[in-house]
Amino acid sequence: MNTYTKIVDNGVNVPALLDAREALSQAPEAAQFRWRATCNWINGTHCQSQVEQFFGLGEDQCHKRCFTFDADHPEIFAAEDQGATPVEYVLVGLASCLTAGVASVAQHRNIQLNMVKVCIEGDMDIQGILGIDPDVRNGYRGIRVLFEVDADATHEEIEAVVAQSQKRSAVYDIITNPTPVEVVVRG
Amino acid sequence: MNTYTKIVDNGVNVPALLDAREALSQAPEAAQFRWRATCNWINGTHCQSQVEQFFGLGEDQCHKRCFTFDADHPEIFAAEDQGATPVEYVLVGLASCLTAGVASVAQHRNIQLNMVKVCIEGDMDIQGILGIDPDVRNGYRGIRVLFEVDADATHEEIEAVVAQSQKRSAVYDIITNPTPVEVVVRG
Repeated sequence: MNTYTKIVDNGVNVPALLDAREALSQAPEAAQFRWRATCNWINGTHCQSQVEQFFGLGEDQCHKRCFTFDADHPEIFAAEDQGATPVEYVLVGLASCLTAGVASVAQHRNIQLNMVKVCIEGDMDIQGILGIDPDVRNGYRGIRVLFEVDADATHEEIEAVVAQSQKRSAVYDIITNPTPVEVVVRG
Repeated sequence: MNTYTKIVDNGVNVPALLDAREALSQAPEAAQFRWRATCNWINGTHCQSQVEQFFGLGEDQCHKRCFTFDADHPEIFAAEDQGATPVEYVLVGLASCLTAGVASVAQHRNIQLNMVKVCIEGDMDIQGILGIDPDVRNGYRGIRVLFEVDADATHEEIEAVVAQSQKRSAVYDIITNPTPVEVVVRG
């Protein structure tokens, strides 16, 4: 009998993730995570955020290094364009969440990825944020995500991988469903 | 008569923004913006996004330079931690959107800002993304934003500035309200 085992390596450690799922299903308190960022105003609409610490598995955790992000408005908004706009950061979050999910799901399904590229676009009528028309929302009217995937799989299999990534995506959920946000000013 | 004009400079060009509001209220088609990002899978859950072009004021626009963002999962998720997580990018977007708004509103209200710092936290039960419990959502259960502001104004005036920023914030709207997202795989 000729047995053939396909070696698939997308760089995702699926056994470790399955172990984590098993462990956390027995210890749900360890699954309570708290993600954090700090942001300092620089000048105008330019600010700089830092991401370094978070809480999870019952204790404080730290990234390998501190990640720093400049945000600003573009010059056509009479600003200095020192960084991406806040709404573009949301697109980066969604695109990277869905892409990481595709790599993980593909690994789990024994599908070798060769290339994944995402183009993401969000439509916004800035009459909302400018306060011109109260019936226009401030945020995106809609977001489109276009995947281009080269993988050792059929188009239908690839579509199913993307659909599963979408189903488990944290950022997709945050954007498509309401999330309560509390804003407080320290007294 | 002794007239005194307070010189307030938060670096925001409010007259230009008011002119833009006036111009766009006469030309709503110019207010239709399309923000974009592209994302390339690198390996594992690591991907790299680029933000450079967008559409607005009726034509293609370009940032002064291309902004590049690495995203990854942390080592406790058996990943390489080559960048912030996608859900942290969402926090960066929200914090920077509200901060830019505070600077703009304060300028408009003739309030000098000396320091603005934001701490933002999002609570997530990762039993959602791990598929352990279908009743647990994938995204944040809730987000808290804590502003620390030093400004030439009373605490009540500062709170009112933050409230107005929240009211006009694109990312606050995106997170607190549902936004339709369409995901397509190129055939």
